[in-house]
Amino acid sequence: MMEGALLINKMLERAEQLFPKKEIVSRTASGITRLNYSELGKRTRRLSSALEKLGVGRGDKVATLAWNDHRHLEAYFGIPSMGAVLHTINIRLSPQHIAYIINHAKDKVLLVDPMFLPILEAIKDELSTVEAHIILSDEPQLPDTTLAPLYAYEELLTDANPNYEYPNDLDEHDPAGMCYTSATTGLPKGVVYSHRGLALHSMALGLADSAAISESDVAMPVVPMFHANAWGMPFAATWYGSTQVLPGPSFTPELLANLITQEKVTITAGVPTIWLGLLKELDANAEQYDMSSLRAVLCGGSAAPKGMIQAFETKHKIPFIHAYGMTETTPLVTLSRLKSHQEDLPYDEKLEIRAKQGYVVPGLEIKVVNDDGEVEWNGEDMGELLVRGPWIAEEYYNDERSAEAFRDGWLYTGDIVTIDEEGVMKIADRTKDLVKSGGEWISTIDLENVLMAYEDVFEAAVVGVPHPEWQERPIAAVVLKPDATVSKKELFEFLKPQFANWWLPDDIIFMDEIPKTSVGKFQKNRLREQLQDYLTV
Amino acid sequence: MMEGALLINKMLERAEQLFPKKEIVSRTASGITRLNYSELGKRTRRLSSALEKLGVGRGDKVATLAWNDHRHLEAYFGIPSMGAVLHTINIRLSPQHIAYIINHAKDKVLLVDPMFLPILEAIKDELSTVEAHIILSDEPQLPDTTLAPLYAYEELLTDANPNYEYPNDLDEHDPAGMCYTSATTGLPKGVVYSHRGLALHSMALGLADSAAISESDVAMPVVPMFHANAWGMPFAATWYGSTQVLPGPSFTPELLANLITQEKVTITAGVPTIWLGLLKELDANAEQYDMSSLRAVLCGGSAAPKGMIQAFETKHKIPFIHAYGMTETTPLVTLSRLKSHQEDLPYDEKLEIRAKQGYVVPGLEIKVVNDDGEVEWNGEDMGELLVRGPWIAEEYYNDERSAEAFRDGWLYTGDIVTIDEEGVMKIADRTKDLVKSGGEWISTIDLENVLMAYEDVFEAAVVGVPHPEWQERPIAAVVLKPDATVSKKELFEFLKPQFANWWLPDDIIFMDEIPKTSVGKFQKNRLREQLQDYLTV
Repeated sequence: MMEGALLINKMLERAEQLFPKKEIVSRTASGITRLNYSELGKRTRRLSSALEKLGVGRGDKVATLAWNDHRHLEAYFGIPSMGAVLHTINIRLSPQHIAYIINHAKDKVLLVDPMFLPILEAIKDELSTVEAHIILSDEPQLPDTTLAPLYAYEELLTDANPNYEYPNDLDEHDPAGMCYTSATTGLPKGVVYSHRGLALHSMALGLADSAAISESDVAMPVVPMFHANAWGMPFAATWYGSTQVLPGPSFTPELLANLITQEKVTITAGVPTIWLGLLKELDANAEQYDMSSLRAVLCGGSAAPKGMIQAFETKHKIPFIHAYGMTETTPLVTLSRLKSHQEDLPYDEKLEIRAKQGYVVPGLEIKVVNDDGEVEWNGEDMGELLVRGPWIAEEYYNDERSAEAFRDGWLYTGDIVTIDEEGVMKIADRTKDLVKSGGEWISTIDLENVLMAYEDVFEAAVVGVPHPEWQERPIAAVVLKPDATVSKKELFEFLKPQFANWWLPDDIIFMDEIPKTSVGKFQKNRLREQLQDYLTV
Repeated sequence: MMEGALLINKMLERAEQLFPKKEIVSRTASGITRLNYSELGKRTRRLSSALEKLGVGRGDKVATLAWNDHRHLEAYFGIPSMGAVLHTINIRLSPQHIAYIINHAKDKVLLVDPMFLPILEAIKDELSTVEAHIILSDEPQLPDTTLAPLYAYEELLTDANPNYEYPNDLDEHDPAGMCYTSATTGLPKGVVYSHRGLALHSMALGLADSAAISESDVAMPVVPMFHANAWGMPFAATWYGSTQVLPGPSFTPELLANLITQEKVTITAGVPTIWLGLLKELDANAEQYDMSSLRAVLCGGSAAPKGMIQAFETKHKIPFIHAYGMTETTPLVTLSRLKSHQEDLPYDEKLEIRAKQGYVVPGLEIKVVNDDGEVEWNGEDMGELLVRGPWIAEEYYNDERSAEAFRDGWLYTGDIVTIDEEGVMKIADRTKDLVKSGGEWISTIDLENVLMAYEDVFEAAVVGVPHPEWQERPIAAVVLKPDATVSKKELFEFLKPQFANWWLPDDIIFMDEIPKTSVGKFQKNRLREQLQDYLTV
């Protein structure tokens, strides 16, 4: 068989050839821009040609600090197609971490939304490899900044070659993109995506049993394009010729609901927080919107509360798909689709299955291990999830920490899971968050989910705290809703019937706020530090 | 990214792990057998273990002469998974060609349906590499035959290891299967399929915009498993956990209609002749069947008449999908799906589009060339179709004829096509059948399709015949339906308004029969020979 490379440029070429008039609807600071794949193709080639003039060559890293818009999409294709590497920078990282990853990746050129200039200005003296800054804006005038040298994206494109020819000797194993994880502790770790990995991941997203991304879709990635390739949606949607809606900066639930209504969005993707916001907006102002075009809301990043899935589906008739993945996995690993024999189950049982993380997509393999070896798929025994396959990273980029996470050909995800007889995976905890009590494991996520289902509870985090006899015991930190008055005793009464006795927290502590990371996740290591002497002193 | 090999054994392992109870419904000479993926997995491992005991090792060729049934499916997975090569023999080839390909492939073991023993007995003295014959049958007793050594499949499996472990060092580029083309002239040419090619082809079949093969499908490949891997359906259906229905030997339209009704088949695949037969059966006895489960009838191999597509869809509400491919392309290249902007066209226009061969699936590239170079996609200009991509052969197996068909990284298909502005391809002719008249090209297929649409015409073949002035001119050979009385003049009157004057055949000859190949295609080279002096002497 021919090698017939799986390459990013082939995806865009297909869209230009077969779907030249399909649109990308892009929201930027200047409003809505519409362009089609024929125009996107030409602009993308102009971008590559402009980058080449700036000295970008094969394997050079070009970074983006950008929202989900058409210029970011042009970077998604223009940078890897010329053989360079697209480094999407998570703008929610701390400035110190951003400086670290720019230097660590050796980024040569930065594509920057003007909104992020202050971040770069603050760290510019630390940056040792950057040779040019390109401002992503419709404005002809360059913003006032101390960064140099400085170029206007649109001006560079005007002067560039729309017929730039992509090299025909790219190898599918060549690096195409990279993204750094937002570690809760330590420095961010870099993941490099190959053309092959991104192409195969796109195929997985197009499978009927997966996200089924199709030409007839209007796809709106709400998950940021600086976050695990917006879950690969921009690549897949382009390859298959879907209409794309890119919601741009600082959107509100109202704005998303309006975009879905006006553009007839069929599939969208984002984290639970986004969907919680959309749900509130729909609950409040349902009559203003038409959600009937939506065939799937993909949700990942962290576990979606069952109640939210139910509210989307029963109140608003919006199909909800729970998925699991991480930066290291491009990211799609599992997806919670029902199997055909489950379709006739009562709704509650189906919801129970679909609130889990789902089963593994074709092309990947998963297994679960604990200290005793491989764990049986019985829905009860917990262990760490291992993943392998052609869109799974094999190492962190130039990082000694690779040896921990990548062993014997598998990625050790650090997620503690169960898998049931049907192969359906459920996240129980992060390895480091799991409570190890007297040789048994307690899932903090299970406890948190039940606590957060209590009406008066705004949020709850459970951590393992050192204990003289049991090694560790769970302590729950709870933030109540404004004006709520529930007592510790009432919460314990609520928990008791739902857990084995030894799972119950040793105490419930009311707090004003739970410490969080820059990306809004519970910072459990800080909570653990705060509580470390709670049961011993 | 990890290499995470795209391997045949991973597909079956996924089905065993995630869909152990989904069924394969297999029709053999003994009746219907039902087994599930868990059982299929064990039997497949037993087969590999048995073959190993018979001396089959890495890279050895194991051939099948078999219908579509569960044992053939076990061979599909058991042979490549152990690192050997599955050689599916087209039992419709002449015995001389079968002898040639067994020797040419150096087949070590033959898996044979008892029905084909006479073929092998006739050629056994010519076979130089075969070391064992395995009889595919439920019968415990071996049939009476002069072939030796002889083994009973089921007996070998009983004695074999159901936990046989597949090698973990297979490379995705290793050969997994092979199939010889049924050449209309000359000796058959061998195509070798890699694990990678078959896996990527399976992904293409699972895409929402392609055949969308899914876990919820009940897939029935009617196209023989000895013909381009039954268009890859058994691999994809197993990977995705579909129920499979394998219709076995010598089926009738009635039998197919009953299987669809009883097993609730959702997708099936075959050549136009099969669907013409089914259509007649449905027209005659619609009330006996329930076709409502069918979501797609895939049709390829040769062009389906527009009237047939229309009859399936309007009379019987059965969605019909036209596809194009060949042995050299694994086979899927194009598929005639409407694009979303075409969905609102009037039915006739949609039918017009869908009666063409469709646009190229993701992962492949096509272009069209003639003597002047690359041909524009305008729906008019004809040229030879070129294909490249990761499931396209790069050569014929040990065959000097490779140099003709494989050039500059492209497969020259030998098919003359047009492609329109939407990228939709239409087969105009085979290169060698095209009539070259005064420097212009005339499509024999277009003429034949119109002639065959005439009610009294049973079949029609058009060939180019040497002409002293125009180089070649078309002559039509027509077979009338029994008792039909149409005149040559009437047929010319029928053709005239539909073609440019210079496209009209120089003569129409009535015949009793048009010469055909072993697989039922018009043998135009023989017809050309018969008519070669028709316009010159």
